[in-house]
Amino acid sequence: MTSPPRREFAGQTLGRFVAESSWADIGPDLRHEAKRALLNYVGGALGVSGSRVVDAASRVVAPFSGPQTTTVIGRPERLDLMAASFVNAIAANLLDYDDTHPNTVGHPTAPVAPPLFALAEQRGLSGAALLHAFILGFEVECRLGNAVQPDHYNRGWHITATCGVFGSAAACAKLLGLSAEQTWTALGLAASQSASIIENLTTEAKNVGVGNAARNGLLAALLAREGFSAAPAAIEGPFGWARVSGQEPMMEEIVGGLGERWELPKNTYKPYPSGIVFHAIIDAALELRSRLNLTAADIAAVTVRGDQLMLDRGERPIDSERDARVSIHHSAALGLAVGKAGVREHTAPVVFDPQIMALRGKVRAELADMPPWSASVTVETVDGRTETATVEHARGSPKAPMSDADLEAKFRDNAALGGSADKADARIAGIWAMEETADLAPLLRSMGA
Amino acid sequence: MTSPPRREFAGQTLGRFVAESSWADIGPDLRHEAKRALLNYVGGALGVSGSRVVDAASRVVAPFSGPQTTTVIGRPERLDLMAASFVNAIAANLLDYDDTHPNTVGHPTAPVAPPLFALAEQRGLSGAALLHAFILGFEVECRLGNAVQPDHYNRGWHITATCGVFGSAAACAKLLGLSAEQTWTALGLAASQSASIIENLTTEAKNVGVGNAARNGLLAALLAREGFSAAPAAIEGPFGWARVSGQEPMMEEIVGGLGERWELPKNTYKPYPSGIVFHAIIDAALELRSRLNLTAADIAAVTVRGDQLMLDRGERPIDSERDARVSIHHSAALGLAVGKAGVREHTAPVVFDPQIMALRGKVRAELADMPPWSASVTVETVDGRTETATVEHARGSPKAPMSDADLEAKFRDNAALGGSADKADARIAGIWAMEETADLAPLLRSMGA
Repeated sequence: MTSPPRREFAGQTLGRFVAESSWADIGPDLRHEAKRALLNYVGGALGVSGSRVVDAASRVVAPFSGPQTTTVIGRPERLDLMAASFVNAIAANLLDYDDTHPNTVGHPTAPVAPPLFALAEQRGLSGAALLHAFILGFEVECRLGNAVQPDHYNRGWHITATCGVFGSAAACAKLLGLSAEQTWTALGLAASQSASIIENLTTEAKNVGVGNAARNGLLAALLAREGFSAAPAAIEGPFGWARVSGQEPMMEEIVGGLGERWELPKNTYKPYPSGIVFHAIIDAALELRSRLNLTAADIAAVTVRGDQLMLDRGERPIDSERDARVSIHHSAALGLAVGKAGVREHTAPVVFDPQIMALRGKVRAELADMPPWSASVTVETVDGRTETATVEHARGSPKAPMSDADLEAKFRDNAALGGSADKADARIAGIWAMEETADLAPLLRSMGA
Repeated sequence: MTSPPRREFAGQTLGRFVAESSWADIGPDLRHEAKRALLNYVGGALGVSGSRVVDAASRVVAPFSGPQTTTVIGRPERLDLMAASFVNAIAANLLDYDDTHPNTVGHPTAPVAPPLFALAEQRGLSGAALLHAFILGFEVECRLGNAVQPDHYNRGWHITATCGVFGSAAACAKLLGLSAEQTWTALGLAASQSASIIENLTTEAKNVGVGNAARNGLLAALLAREGFSAAPAAIEGPFGWARVSGQEPMMEEIVGGLGERWELPKNTYKPYPSGIVFHAIIDAALELRSRLNLTAADIAAVTVRGDQLMLDRGERPIDSERDARVSIHHSAALGLAVGKAGVREHTAPVVFDPQIMALRGKVRAELADMPPWSASVTVETVDGRTETATVEHARGSPKAPMSDADLEAKFRDNAALGGSADKADARIAGIWAMEETADLAPLLRSMGA
């Protein structure tokens, strides 16, 4: 990137960075990580493509959709770019089973990938162009998140949506070939559309926030292209996004080392659609199950040990699927008795299966001096054996990243849930081959029902 | 309204109020004021219907518009409900020539009227139904604004947009016949879509904020109807809209005296498309012009006296139309030499007319101990006369409201600017007759080009 003019605002620096970035600047590791993020994105949306919320979202926006240019992942209907971006972003993030950027605890791909898929399908763009735009959008949203975390979230802003709209705007600006000035203008236009609050986190208003981030970022880029203006200081000015949202941004996090350090390699993927703090329990329980060849009938008692955060979040009666996704007891029971903890194992038929309910009743949680996100599980069997497994770095955490094969298996699991197991291999292969694909339209069109 | 259950949240109280309100509860003064607000709304949008920003907004959203059910005011194209709401709200507020709610200094009608016009046109609803929904939406947004003003605006939130989305949601919920629970859910869904910042106030990102408030309020109501959920405490909860935006809301302002005291009667309308603090200057100058039969050639010197706020805001070089709209010198020059201060008199041909520029050069501003929003103007003529006029309550201010005839004249002025002078009388008559109109569709369809 050329050296910055004096007194440049953050949005302007980001705008230049995005507009001037060339594909040759992007190394193979970044490119590969982008494909991993997109594989995880598509799989997540496929898994819930038939869910009530996705149905309702599509039903609400369909009457406000222009030409049906865009595939809705895993579904038969087609919508315009905006409407499809809204629905696909909601699907991708619906179960919080999408990716997690550890430093911000945001889910960065859901607001960014959908409008890129939409533009690429409509215009027959190349995989390289899409991956490049995705990497840059991801970078912009995570840098803005880093600049205000953890206070932004703690204050009550749902960071996936509030920063996601900037990521979507930056990515769409790149894919549309906007100039540096148009790109920072798009970021400024995003700043006036950044919204979503934590009070609504356990409701479907949260999903609307994520869907809006995706479509409004695209809107910002399109408006900038048509000459709409925005303030250059819209991010950090006295009445800009960061300060109006309640805090002084850490500017170095936004503009330091652009093109040198990247956020995408820090991205993580969940192996289980449950709260991240419970993943070590599942892993430890799975290990015991395979070590002892367990079935539910073998188990007399279970003790789970973890830190205070785990106990605070995870000891609760289970009245709903949502409860099961943040339960110590259900996590342990799944690992020990089912040997699997995917989306299906967090739905009602399993959550309220009498055998699983009985096993949950045998699980006791205990405070232990352990690092966050780690757990140990001790099982006593009816025939008198006692065995403990301890997991410090749960699968999917930064020090134990999911392998490509893990991500493929997760994709297949999701595809089966969504009823498209037969198409999973072709779709997986298509995503891995994106970089060499000159026209993405056929692949993206094939993502429908 | 039935008495509130214990521990009801503000959104729930508002939701019940809106859902339970009956047209018979709405007195004739309120009904008439609603028509005045809508007359002013339509006129404002007509005046700028051919402007660059409205053109660009329509061009950007047209490709994302479904069935063309909705008139864009003063324009030939038709769009779907969402897209037309976006464009019409932008047009209505473009020059800040729309209405002003004095306590919040917000512009309440622009985000609320457009989706109501859209729904009424599509469904052939009655004028009474539209007026009723409008009055309730106006009430909700202004009450929320009252609960957080003046800190909300001072902190950097553009209150027209941030509260407007609640007004739009409440009004649309009423017009769609939603239940009390669906209505508070719509308000909760609006809380996750409330956005727009003051840093962007002098840019077109501001217009996007107002357009989004209109369309996203409609989206909130439609999502609530389809069963989307939201938090009951989304307004005042620990991580609800008010606190996340930075402050403790004044709850009594939201829920006190519902159905007894109303905000709409406090609404004001601008006679001139310039900053409200300059209106007294124009009035005083107009009075001098008529008293002395002035032309520009008669004037040797002009002194304008006002308070510090007026001087802070109004002493500036004039490089653009925007500057002219907040200029002491241009305001005085228009009143004295042109005898008119409408939209046309704030556009380049007049702003950069050499005679007007010369006259501005003769205007001096002076600090005086005067109440806010008042002014005195002293003119010295080339033949040696000196005359002063003082205006304490400018035309259009709460103590000197514009009459119905004033609003009609403003409408005709706007219509002429937008090229539809010939249709003005019919449209004015149609708006005054709204209450008795069983099917608004023909009237609303006639508002296009």
